[in-house]
Amino acid sequence: MRRPPTPGEAGFLGQLVDAGLVIESGVPGVYGFSATFVDVRERLEALVTGHAADDCPERLHFPPVLPKATLEKSGYLNSFPHLGASIFGFEGDEREAAELGAAAARHESWPHLGETGLVLTPAACYPVYPAIGRRAPLPTGGLCIDVGSALVFRNEPSGDPARLQMFRQRELVRIGEPETVAAWRDKWRDRALAILGSVGLEATVDIAADPFFGRAGRMMSLSQREQALKFEVMAPIASPQPTALASFNYHRDHFTQVHAIAMEDGSEAHSACLGFGMERCTLALFRKHGLEPRSWDPAVRDLLWT
Amino acid sequence: MRRPPTPGEAGFLGQLVDAGLVIESGVPGVYGFSATFVDVRERLEALVTGHAADDCPERLHFPPVLPKATLEKSGYLNSFPHLGASIFGFEGDEREAAELGAAAARHESWPHLGETGLVLTPAACYPVYPAIGRRAPLPTGGLCIDVGSALVFRNEPSGDPARLQMFRQRELVRIGEPETVAAWRDKWRDRALAILGSVGLEATVDIAADPFFGRAGRMMSLSQREQALKFEVMAPIASPQPTALASFNYHRDHFTQVHAIAMEDGSEAHSACLGFGMERCTLALFRKHGLEPRSWDPAVRDLLWT
Repeated sequence: MRRPPTPGEAGFLGQLVDAGLVIESGVPGVYGFSATFVDVRERLEALVTGHAADDCPERLHFPPVLPKATLEKSGYLNSFPHLGASIFGFEGDEREAAELGAAAARHESWPHLGETGLVLTPAACYPVYPAIGRRAPLPTGGLCIDVGSALVFRNEPSGDPARLQMFRQRELVRIGEPETVAAWRDKWRDRALAILGSVGLEATVDIAADPFFGRAGRMMSLSQREQALKFEVMAPIASPQPTALASFNYHRDHFTQVHAIAMEDGSEAHSACLGFGMERCTLALFRKHGLEPRSWDPAVRDLLWT
Repeated sequence: MRRPPTPGEAGFLGQLVDAGLVIESGVPGVYGFSATFVDVRERLEALVTGHAADDCPERLHFPPVLPKATLEKSGYLNSFPHLGASIFGFEGDEREAAELGAAAARHESWPHLGETGLVLTPAACYPVYPAIGRRAPLPTGGLCIDVGSALVFRNEPSGDPARLQMFRQRELVRIGEPETVAAWRDKWRDRALAILGSVGLEATVDIAADPFFGRAGRMMSLSQREQALKFEVMAPIASPQPTALASFNYHRDHFTQVHAIAMEDGSEAHSACLGFGMERCTLALFRKHGLEPRSWDPAVRDLLWT
């Protein structure tokens, strides 16, 4: 794995596995989840959905695979080459299929593969922009898209149970006039603090940066922080240091330029998105309140289960 | 695409796209779905969940990625090399990352990739067996696992809107004494006919075979049919010929041998699974009742929405 666990992370993962909440697969960052875990996650998702009602979002769901060309157009590979994931499939005849089967039986590298033209979706908002770009220009006020609890993948095996390779983002996307979008992002940053506080988490907010790759990436992180384009709401999970539970991102015209999204009156459209990392939010609740939801603070139980 | 659409398939896809129910991505078999589509799918899932209550299933959820070694142990690559999908990620330094970024900007093949050790899950039951194999032997009566509405991937780009590359299986798995498992599979085959009939679909059942690869695969299909290991419940979707909506599979000791699952008394355990192809079931409803659920037969609406 790319980053071995700290003693605290290994200890918390061990507790989760012993309690049956998390099921190991043999690969770090890829886990199964018990009924209790899934129930807490879904209850948290419903809490967020309730708060989103006043945005009147349009629900659009996408699978966690994306055309390679769509990801390439966004410039993702310039910023996060280390996190990208391309899907390869078999290209061959019967003899080559037999060689693939034999290699697989020996757990060797698979021969005779080629790009399928699909990649794994690295963030839940990526399929939204091309879909909106194919529509007519946006009416005044723009729109809000609710992509649900969407699975995303990042190639970063880690021993921290709060850093999964495939995880769920409870994600909303706002596209519209620059000032509308910026205000929406700020409203949700404050709202997320309140939501996570309401279930007993000691959540804090801070300016943040994406994990851009390499030396050039450090400059991109600095610039992103300077412009306050990204905020994170954090709480402790597997370490005493807080982990990001939700992220609030103002893209300015990045995605709207790439996908030719404009306002009806011809003016510029901007975009922003927010995502709650649902497994992280769920883990933070288990960390804070204990591994048995039946013995959680009745106020938290009432909020989630009624 | 591997198989171009028939006129009927292209026509139905066009209607779905025009109605906004299905959103094209640019790659055949990868689509987004509207609020209306997702609502119908979720209502159908809830209907299946209600019928599953008397199995008292244990809910376990898994992400749609699987350790490569797990898929290899199952022998999947010997049967379905053409459908498998391996996840590749970047392995390189800053210079190589720049080369990757430049290749991506030109929509060329990505250089400097290597296997991540993960594959896409081809059927929702695959992660269940290793998880159960790590538990103590099964008590009398065995167990039933509900993996929910799980995403799976198969590398088969097709112009038929009823053949997706990534899709949802509403899947249940039964592991236990051979006769218990076989009876459960047969019960659900009949139950699925009734469920799909209750929402107005002209569903039929037949012995079926998996799409095994190549000439050797044709022998495996014959053998599977002879032993009646697989049934499918079918209804028309994009073609007059019926399409499989749900599948009922008796694995005998295949997965239980691979993952060392046995009964508490030392006797042999068998497994079976069933999966409703949720997008197919949803599409069959749109085909049968029209693209606007508000004008569907009130009896069907009542069953789904109350």
